[in-house]
Amino acid sequence: MLADNSRALDRMFHPSSIAVIGASSRVSENGWVRRLLDFGYKGNIYPINPKVTEIRGMKAYPSVRDVPNAIEYAILNVPAHLVPQAMRECVEKGIKFVHCFAAGFSETGTDEGRRLQAEITKIAVDGGVRLIGPNCMGVYCPESRMTFGEDFPTEKGRIALISQSGAEASRLIFLCHDVNLYFSKAVNYGNAADLDAPELLEYLVQDTETDIIALYIEGVKNYPRFISAVKQCMKKKPVIILKAGLTKNGADVAAFHTASITGAKAVWDALFKETGAIPALTMDEVADIIQGLARIKKLQGRRVAIIGRGGGIGVVATDICERAGLIVPPFSPETHRKLLQIRSDAGAMLRNPVEPKLGMEGAADFYLKGLPIIDQDTETDIILVQMAVDIHGGHKPDLLQDVSAAAYALCATAESIKKPIAVALFTGGHIDTITAVTAAREILTKTGTPVFSGVEAAARSLSKIYNYYRFLNSKM
Amino acid sequence: MLADNSRALDRMFHPSSIAVIGASSRVSENGWVRRLLDFGYKGNIYPINPKVTEIRGMKAYPSVRDVPNAIEYAILNVPAHLVPQAMRECVEKGIKFVHCFAAGFSETGTDEGRRLQAEITKIAVDGGVRLIGPNCMGVYCPESRMTFGEDFPTEKGRIALISQSGAEASRLIFLCHDVNLYFSKAVNYGNAADLDAPELLEYLVQDTETDIIALYIEGVKNYPRFISAVKQCMKKKPVIILKAGLTKNGADVAAFHTASITGAKAVWDALFKETGAIPALTMDEVADIIQGLARIKKLQGRRVAIIGRGGGIGVVATDICERAGLIVPPFSPETHRKLLQIRSDAGAMLRNPVEPKLGMEGAADFYLKGLPIIDQDTETDIILVQMAVDIHGGHKPDLLQDVSAAAYALCATAESIKKPIAVALFTGGHIDTITAVTAAREILTKTGTPVFSGVEAAARSLSKIYNYYRFLNSKM
Repeated sequence: MLADNSRALDRMFHPSSIAVIGASSRVSENGWVRRLLDFGYKGNIYPINPKVTEIRGMKAYPSVRDVPNAIEYAILNVPAHLVPQAMRECVEKGIKFVHCFAAGFSETGTDEGRRLQAEITKIAVDGGVRLIGPNCMGVYCPESRMTFGEDFPTEKGRIALISQSGAEASRLIFLCHDVNLYFSKAVNYGNAADLDAPELLEYLVQDTETDIIALYIEGVKNYPRFISAVKQCMKKKPVIILKAGLTKNGADVAAFHTASITGAKAVWDALFKETGAIPALTMDEVADIIQGLARIKKLQGRRVAIIGRGGGIGVVATDICERAGLIVPPFSPETHRKLLQIRSDAGAMLRNPVEPKLGMEGAADFYLKGLPIIDQDTETDIILVQMAVDIHGGHKPDLLQDVSAAAYALCATAESIKKPIAVALFTGGHIDTITAVTAAREILTKTGTPVFSGVEAAARSLSKIYNYYRFLNSKM
Repeated sequence: MLADNSRALDRMFHPSSIAVIGASSRVSENGWVRRLLDFGYKGNIYPINPKVTEIRGMKAYPSVRDVPNAIEYAILNVPAHLVPQAMRECVEKGIKFVHCFAAGFSETGTDEGRRLQAEITKIAVDGGVRLIGPNCMGVYCPESRMTFGEDFPTEKGRIALISQSGAEASRLIFLCHDVNLYFSKAVNYGNAADLDAPELLEYLVQDTETDIIALYIEGVKNYPRFISAVKQCMKKKPVIILKAGLTKNGADVAAFHTASITGAKAVWDALFKETGAIPALTMDEVADIIQGLARIKKLQGRRVAIIGRGGGIGVVATDICERAGLIVPPFSPETHRKLLQIRSDAGAMLRNPVEPKLGMEGAADFYLKGLPIIDQDTETDIILVQMAVDIHGGHKPDLLQDVSAAAYALCATAESIKKPIAVALFTGGHIDTITAVTAAREILTKTGTPVFSGVEAAARSLSKIYNYYRFLNSKM
């Protein structure tokens, strides 16, 4: 039955046809039909609008009932009070999935909103229609070319997202795009009147196109089913959960966003403890954890070797790592001896953190000569490279070239390094520095080296990934 | 005596002449003479180098003793083992301040390093010379055009920095520059063999050119004098302290950086509690707190009104604020009623956080019409504007123009708003988005609106500033 259900949900991400009910006839409109066409959706699109006969060269129909062919999926883009009738017509037409974009239901906090939501949910459930939403953006699936963001990437990847927030979903998709990571599918399901996180998660456990699963959740209706789905999932692939609304005011706001009952913090703390699911507090953190999991396949320990300029920056980085639950021990005497051979000038820190020579040239040189030494060190498990480009301020004429060269040197050496490498690329705010950092990030992430926006982000991600692998080992 | 000492230290930041002992004769060299000349130092520069007769068109002398005129300040750019002799010559010449750039002293952890440091310190103290360092970058003072960073800003400001780390000092100077904030003076004093944080802080308490003081400290030798200086200072101006090396490994690393004894965490926790000094964990946080203090002159309460797109982003922002010690209460019924008049469409969140209409045009419109309503709200004290530009991904052709227009609208309305305003500008990683965000940050910070890199940074800064003003009020 689980497999059957999963096969059914698979159609939701790959429907052969989509009706847009309430398709806009205005050329300037940023509507769903244009979005699907622009994104390259290859199935049949049926614009539904009783006031016009044609939209973007396609025949428009007054109702889904008037469409001569079968329809698998519908997007409801009509005001809330018209949704019940539209839903009835979808049932009549035998449509399997209805994404209700319209808002104005339980999240309004009004009796009328709650009544309307109950009504459309009953029509859907009684009629054998799966309802996504209401009050949401629906499905993103690069393979089938469905999207809810106009400028979402068309590249396919192996990350999946289940999100009650459309805006946070968009942020994550773009944040991952920035580091060359892509999605198998994402769904924004808003008020979760019918389809909810547990069922979506059960589907993704079995999805062979997905390796990593992220969730943005405000509330879950069937908590036992959810915790069971998370447990199942953690046996096969990592689950990252951004649980929003865990503070008092956050919970109140969530009620007005998706009408969710957010649940007590203690309950969610227990879930994280019991399931081993990876907790995140912001979407930036979710993106960092995804990147770590996608690019660091093994993590034997939590002892970090830090490479980077600036004695004080090294002290602060050490504090940050240790506060995040990592350890920055001294290198072995053997490593120290070897490092002395390539870096013997006064004032250089070699203990760990180790300081390359000045500038990006010094960094590049150390990546080639020093990293192989660190790779052999018996006292550390992970290499964290700090590229503190911002200490240059951005006024150097060759910055872009120098930082890119350092990034290429790091890529070249990374291929032969056995320890996992993470890079903290500091940007500062000068546009020249940012341009250089953006180029370096592109070079590094394209070859699979994880890049973080700073030591805090890197340390937090590494620590959570370490905990994940430790959890896995404890279960074996 | 305190006043006398301060007058003396004032000369350290404004010396009428500087000798560079160990001035480089190589044209390509990035040396101290070139740095001072390029930065526009207007006093006399005396290059000291026994091997040449001229450096950059100036007469070079074999020793400071050979310079016919008085010298107020010297930079020691010779290897550690030559420093004692150079120091003796400085004493002989009657030089008042010696900045020892050279490393290779106590921070090496060797007996020889410690012996050398003790020797040069004794020579300095016995000879009436104030020693900055060793193992440090010295003084930055835009007014006198002294610098240790080639590309530091020449603009004068009202922030002062006392830092044991040169790299972290550079980061802070650039981070502040990014948001149009500048320094009265900064000093990087490394191993603190003679001049240490307490004395420097006592000087800055009295400095009429300084409003805000930041410190990066690994260790302090005279703790009672330091705590007393912090207390004195807090009566007149805020003190922000990044205390590095408070973790076990961090403390070990600090010992190899500046040979500091970092002190127990409990001791420093007590200092923060007793003095009210503002604690920071990273230089990014120091910059954020400085910006908040410089631009938010009064903070009556900690109840935040959040303005920005994205229901889920609003929920997460609320969680972040509450975790940081702030409150995000519902607006008053009166405010809610007024907001409904300008924003009545379904799906809009109005409770607080309040959601402007779509896109940057929607944001700009809300800044003009909505902010004056929020300004009158009786339930909130601070306005936090989220400009989540990254949800656009960066592919919109008019992004730069639209984001700039929104920033101008915010500036225009901010002038008549009484509540403090803080802006969280999300950048994402797409270069077009970053370019737009950089332009908006420039527009906003030039007119004195504080801009932070995200809600976490803004909330953390606002919370600490609130605590500072509350501390001040409790003392009145």
